[in-house]
Amino acid sequence: MAVYTEVTDDALRAFLTAYDIGELVAFRGIAEGVENSNYMLRTTAGDFILTLYEKRVNPADLPWFLNLMQHLATQGVNCPQPVMAQDGNALRMLADRHAAITTFLPGVWPRRVQLVHCGPLGEALARLHKAGASYAPRRENALGPAGWRPLLERSLSRADDVVPGLGAELTAVLDRLLEAWPRDLPEGQIHADLFPDNVFFLKNEVSGLIDFYFAATDLLAYDLAICLNAWCFEPDGAFNVTKGRALIGAYQAVRPLSPAETKALPILAQGAALRFLLTRLHDWLYVPEGALVTPKDPLEYLRKLRFHRHASGIAAYVG
Amino acid sequence: MAVYTEVTDDALRAFLTAYDIGELVAFRGIAEGVENSNYMLRTTAGDFILTLYEKRVNPADLPWFLNLMQHLATQGVNCPQPVMAQDGNALRMLADRHAAITTFLPGVWPRRVQLVHCGPLGEALARLHKAGASYAPRRENALGPAGWRPLLERSLSRADDVVPGLGAELTAVLDRLLEAWPRDLPEGQIHADLFPDNVFFLKNEVSGLIDFYFAATDLLAYDLAICLNAWCFEPDGAFNVTKGRALIGAYQAVRPLSPAETKALPILAQGAALRFLLTRLHDWLYVPEGALVTPKDPLEYLRKLRFHRHASGIAAYVG
Repeated sequence: MAVYTEVTDDALRAFLTAYDIGELVAFRGIAEGVENSNYMLRTTAGDFILTLYEKRVNPADLPWFLNLMQHLATQGVNCPQPVMAQDGNALRMLADRHAAITTFLPGVWPRRVQLVHCGPLGEALARLHKAGASYAPRRENALGPAGWRPLLERSLSRADDVVPGLGAELTAVLDRLLEAWPRDLPEGQIHADLFPDNVFFLKNEVSGLIDFYFAATDLLAYDLAICLNAWCFEPDGAFNVTKGRALIGAYQAVRPLSPAETKALPILAQGAALRFLLTRLHDWLYVPEGALVTPKDPLEYLRKLRFHRHASGIAAYVG
Repeated sequence: MAVYTEVTDDALRAFLTAYDIGELVAFRGIAEGVENSNYMLRTTAGDFILTLYEKRVNPADLPWFLNLMQHLATQGVNCPQPVMAQDGNALRMLADRHAAITTFLPGVWPRRVQLVHCGPLGEALARLHKAGASYAPRRENALGPAGWRPLLERSLSRADDVVPGLGAELTAVLDRLLEAWPRDLPEGQIHADLFPDNVFFLKNEVSGLIDFYFAATDLLAYDLAICLNAWCFEPDGAFNVTKGRALIGAYQAVRPLSPAETKALPILAQGAALRFLLTRLHDWLYVPEGALVTPKDPLEYLRKLRFHRHASGIAAYVG
């Protein structure tokens, strides 16, 4: 939950004069999202989200993200659409931050994932991947395989403070993963962070996908592997194959996996688990200054990683 | 900013069936308010706020607060109105917390107080005091003078860690204040926490007063003194008499202060400064477990307290 940057009324009013979205009616900080500051903005023209991009986002990437969201929306994906100012730009400065207004999406994110969510999620993910195919610009995934070694090295000296032997275990896993990582799978625009708090539902249908600020050009099936990790484990650590089957099945009904993608799933799922384990481990060891967010337990993802290491094939995920 | 308690979709849906407010459309945590968990709740019937009362609120006081808000709204005060469930109750249980739905108020709270806010605030405060006169039930102010000694004693042993000599200074101030505290001033229902984040403005008019969960039956002029502290000091610590004059003048245009109230203002302002200094000092020394809020600097209120000790009369506040 996060509002890192406060916006004064005067600055907000001046900012809004650049847009054609009517008069200010309400403005409340939103206690969601951990990277940026988000406000619910109501004007006489409707409801919007105002996002101030905080330091973890590279400003040079912002046009890529905003253009992707705009592109996806034109392709029928329910995602926030950047609102253009009168000068045609969606990206401006506010309170010394890059800032953008996007449309408000209805829906509620699931605080507790249930089986009924997993099918619609899989379908929405596959539709997202298809819609992204016509968005040509690439963005390298800074948190993809090439980023994992540097990320591990930042935490390695203190990893054993969290669990004895963790540093050696992660080093071995990383070595093996980088060697086994598939190279020829279909690529495209992936969300790369499609956790439950980024997916809104209405009446058990996906009403919106939000928070595209980790999106990148990477293996499509890796995005599915991220979702397997984020949606299909139970709070007690058990993988729920019924959820996995619903997620993968609904995904494949829209975009069938190739045999190579299916075969790679255990490796991709290990990589996905390692990626979140590494960022959580770092944030756990080095709580960022001014953190308004309790660091998430890295061990949750260590358990998931170990599960995937013992997965012999797709049967581990669909039963 | 705060969402302490997460509400699962199922629990929310079940909760909403008790009301006649249509179907769920959106649900987002609000990053404001430090005591309770607040959510923006949109249904097909409109916008609401869902509040889950956390441990600092005594459940026995909740009917008093909710009835006060309902009473004030009928008297023309723009404050959240409790929404009754089908059974006629505004107070229910949700996620193991007492919870209530109230109406959503438009407006924006001033992140930076300007002169233009102070007149409308003074008028709104005086109207609130007049509207409360017909609300008969009393609620003792737990954070009024009788509560200050126990509050100080909880921090006394460590007060000097914050500023050397602070414990002795506060003890002396408290002794003197309790002796000098006025007894025969007009009483009524006070808000007792009317800081800028609890006052919404639209086009420089007050559009809403929120967060009545410190409200109590106490000296009306003490509420004005709380506002002098919260609204009329500049960030550099200087008291702005132009703001003070606007606040007090607009208050008196609706509810003139008696000569005894006017005379008591420096004492009341010291008391108001001490009350917030003591709670901040305690939270500073003993950061509550699971705190999602950075403790506020107690020294801001020490400086204010010292200013008021040197105020010879109302001239200190209105120039």
